Amino acid sequence: MLTLYYAPHTCALASHIALELAGADYETIYVDFSRQQENSAAYLELNPRGRVPTLVTARGILVETPAILQFIAQSFPDARLAPLEDIYEMARMNAFNSYLCSTVHVAHAHRMRGHRWADDEQAIKAMQKKVPEAVFDAFAIIEQEWQGPWALGKNFSISDIYLFTLAQWLEADGVDPERLPRILDHRNRISAIPAVAKVVTDELSHD
Amino acid sequence: MLTLYYAPHTCALASHIALELAGADYETIYVDFSRQQENSAAYLELNPRGRVPTLVTARGILVETPAILQFIAQSFPDARLAPLEDIYEMARMNAFNSYLCSTVHVAHAHRMRGHRWADDEQAIKAMQKKVPEAVFDAFAIIEQEWQGPWALGKNFSISDIYLFTLAQWLEADGVDPERLPRILDHRNRISAIPAVAKVVTDELSHD
Repeated sequence: MLTLYYAPHTCALASHIALELAGADYETIYVDFSRQQENSAAYLELNPRGRVPTLVTARGILVETPAILQFIAQSFPDARLAPLEDIYEMARMNAFNSYLCSTVHVAHAHRMRGHRWADDEQAIKAMQKKVPEAVFDAFAIIEQEWQGPWALGKNFSISDIYLFTLAQWLEADGVDPERLPRILDHRNRISAIPAVAKVVTDELSHD
Repeated sequence: MLTLYYAPHTCALASHIALELAGADYETIYVDFSRQQENSAAYLELNPRGRVPTLVTARGILVETPAILQFIAQSFPDARLAPLEDIYEMARMNAFNSYLCSTVHVAHAHRMRGHRWADDEQAIKAMQKKVPEAVFDAFAIIEQEWQGPWALGKNFSISDIYLFTLAQWLEADGVDPERLPRILDHRNRISAIPAVAKVVTDELSHD
């Protein structure tokens, strides 16, 4: 049994969908950010970083979306969520996921988490102002390099789930998704997968 | 033959050291940032993102440090640069590397790359002002969680090389490394590995 601690509207959605697609035996525990549960003593004992996702496994906890996604893909190889047998294709997948976590997610984070990088209120507002441009630019590189039909090319993978997860935030970040037609089409196709729709509906039930 | 495009004082150092430790047949090509070679037409044709590292393989190029490091570790298993046979330990390694690329490196990047996240000069200065605190806080989590002797515990891995690489920047980021005694001790031990010293000396020969 795997246990995923998550909050809606966070990148934990990617791990949640991956567990569902993998057919894993898992449960989820909702961390209520509106009540700061991520900073509660109980949660910090589990994950001192106070972030989601946290995946509890039989051997210990795991954090960081790219790591959790690869762990799920390797633990459930029959689900074919990663090109496990091909070192070069795995590297392409990891490069895609690293770019999502270190560039795309970071561009987005300047809207709500500016206090991580500046104390001055005007500076935090200046970061928020640039979010639509920075997020668009980060996604535009993916749009330009897109081969399709999936993020890595001909085979579906955890990179599709991760991209879909971050693309949920486009509108809130002030980016018109019509300017990213391939990413919008991809988002629509991923939304239509029944296991994905189930997880999204489940997470949004807390709103 | 693998070809690594790198610039000194960047995270490309990690890939460079990994190639050396792996005993790979490789060559390096210096990208001169002082002459903006990363934005030259020739380089952008190779890597449209205009960043280093870029690793040229027989099958195509690879980018993003965590992906290149895992590729080198998997391509040269005899060098034992990653816990390749253990899915959970690989996930711990990937979590460590993801944290380095998305939190530690990003905290550092606000000193030189603030224009990515704000246009206003005062905001860029406010980001630079917080770099010593943000970089220290990012490393402090690693310091607190440290088990040693290596980044992942008892076995050396590519996470050690990557941590060592980002820890090169502490002083320039305004962090006194004496405040991070385990990370400083680790940096000293990695520096003393002959293959590491050789690569560091080689890169700094351009200064």
